[in-house]
Amino acid sequence: VSPDPSPREVCVALDLLGGDRAPDVVAEGARLALADDSALRVTLVGPPEVTGRWAGADAGSRLAAAPARQVVEMGEDPLRAVRAKRDATVRVAARLLRDGAADAMVSMGSTGATLAAAVFALGRLPGLTRPALAVALPAAAGSVILLDVGANAQAGADLLAQWALAGSAYAEVLLGRASRVGLLSLGEETGKGDAVRREAHELCAELPIHFVGNVEGGDIPRGRRADVVVTDGFTGNVVLKVLEGAVELFEGRLRAAGVDSSAIHRTTVGFDPERVGGALLLGVPGVCVVGHGAATARSVASSLALAATAVRGSVVSRTAAALQRLVRARRERSGEKSAAGWGTDVRAWRDSPPTDRPGAEGGP
Amino acid sequence: VSPDPSPREVCVALDLLGGDRAPDVVAEGARLALADDSALRVTLVGPPEVTGRWAGADAGSRLAAAPARQVVEMGEDPLRAVRAKRDATVRVAARLLRDGAADAMVSMGSTGATLAAAVFALGRLPGLTRPALAVALPAAAGSVILLDVGANAQAGADLLAQWALAGSAYAEVLLGRASRVGLLSLGEETGKGDAVRREAHELCAELPIHFVGNVEGGDIPRGRRADVVVTDGFTGNVVLKVLEGAVELFEGRLRAAGVDSSAIHRTTVGFDPERVGGALLLGVPGVCVVGHGAATARSVASSLALAATAVRGSVVSRTAAALQRLVRARRERSGEKSAAGWGTDVRAWRDSPPTDRPGAEGGP
Repeated sequence: VSPDPSPREVCVALDLLGGDRAPDVVAEGARLALADDSALRVTLVGPPEVTGRWAGADAGSRLAAAPARQVVEMGEDPLRAVRAKRDATVRVAARLLRDGAADAMVSMGSTGATLAAAVFALGRLPGLTRPALAVALPAAAGSVILLDVGANAQAGADLLAQWALAGSAYAEVLLGRASRVGLLSLGEETGKGDAVRREAHELCAELPIHFVGNVEGGDIPRGRRADVVVTDGFTGNVVLKVLEGAVELFEGRLRAAGVDSSAIHRTTVGFDPERVGGALLLGVPGVCVVGHGAATARSVASSLALAATAVRGSVVSRTAAALQRLVRARRERSGEKSAAGWGTDVRAWRDSPPTDRPGAEGGP
Repeated sequence: VSPDPSPREVCVALDLLGGDRAPDVVAEGARLALADDSALRVTLVGPPEVTGRWAGADAGSRLAAAPARQVVEMGEDPLRAVRAKRDATVRVAARLLRDGAADAMVSMGSTGATLAAAVFALGRLPGLTRPALAVALPAAAGSVILLDVGANAQAGADLLAQWALAGSAYAEVLLGRASRVGLLSLGEETGKGDAVRREAHELCAELPIHFVGNVEGGDIPRGRRADVVVTDGFTGNVVLKVLEGAVELFEGRLRAAGVDSSAIHRTTVGFDPERVGGALLLGVPGVCVVGHGAATARSVASSLALAATAVRGSVVSRTAAALQRLVRARRERSGEKSAAGWGTDVRAWRDSPPTDRPGAEGGP
């Protein structure tokens, strides 16, 4: 997205204790982001004795603080930990977003915890059963948005179709134009893949999006057939990590071949975790970015920039509008269960419903 | 595998009509392979008026011919086409292997057709419900064997465990040492992934292999944690194609950055489809290699070389021996259905049993 000459002011709640190198690297990332974007404000969420080291001491009032005394560790069961810890940084950040004290939230901590905290506080967009994580990956032709990259290990055909719709809306914000959506499968022909893809293909073909049909794994780095590639979180996560590993492999080989570092940099640009900026959680009624756990300060700054871009591009309201049409069509077809009901395929969530999620939110 | 000073003589039946550039490129590949390996013989399987153009005219008696008048086209339903066409090149090649007239078969044609022809003619190894396609991929540390890369879109936990065993045996032939086997999942911790992976993890941990537990997508190009990575054919195929596309992306960027072609070559070596040599079908009682449909002559030669390596390394008998222990253990545990029965998860096969498969083969 080209930089806006007078960008809208955006406030991001930043989980100061999330990630392997918190809090120092996270706070330093906030300072970098503030230096890059004069219309950005950041609220560091953490214990006052920690946030006090940075908040208010830099960039005038643009770096604020909000108190939170607990943290969800990477080793904990995310759902259980988030439920137990009402004062966890990630939950307080989500509440700031819910209450309008922030326009977006960013965490470098556990993906599962961030997802749980966001859904507990915000609910889900009507029409979207389960949120998905979406990342923009560099491709030979432009870039490709891949979703889900790990929020849901399994996904049925209906969920894939919901994500196709949400991904399409998100891509239009990032690309500034209508986007082509593909379903990741084993071959381009309709009918390729397992039963879930075949059904998802039919559902996607009925959506008000530019659905190009099945795409293959190679279409992700190539980027010529689709701007958005939809898959389950298992496959998407594997793809993301295969690409990360492949970049490392090629970097190592390039160094061994004596290629100079500037050429190496031009080759791997965009794959650099420092610039990727993390994944956007699509499907919650608020902008929520999950950064890389091993984030550097530059990577934290990129996550904050991504959050600001999503807020300024109205990703949430555009996604909601796209989903609304789907919800309406479904309601007309059947008066059964709410389209926004909890997914039946995800036992962990169903067996342990969030206890303090505001009742009205997330409902249709 | 280091070249044997006096290698065993190997005869490979080559499907002359398989692949996008058949027959010329396929025949040319045979000639390249014969020039590389003086103990190799190739039988071109195709219509006599076509095989006659090459067979006997080169390398003395090492290039022979076998007649077959039908071909399975890429657009056809592979199972139906293979069943209908008894005289298809790929079926005749499989029969030559079954009857001992060839030690291996190679096809650049449809993967599904080759799989079907091999299973119809040869059956399956006792203990292996469904064969898997295995490829050796270059990694930062050595190479990694990935399976299944597309023979089965879906796989249950039991099938994944069978492939772990077969992959382990295959890797020992290629590596010349004990191999580490990993299960592709969303995180290294036990319990990560979907229900199928969690169950497969438990089954694999009981096998007589060096099971390292869950590995992530990045471990495939890194190669530091496992020599064999086991996954379903959907995920494996996506990974394979993502890597293919990523190599193209990096090649393009390196050229754009002005990096010289020898450095580019050193960076992408091993990923070059010309040298990969295709995938080995693990689980049939015979060496069967499926090459790349868009194969060049060099790539056809690599597929023939892979077939010869597999024959000389006794991949089939080693895999069979590894599986036999599993079969025995299962028989002891339950007297129910044969461990080699058709999988219940693959409707296409069950609903349309092969009509002319020799009865005794493939049984335990």
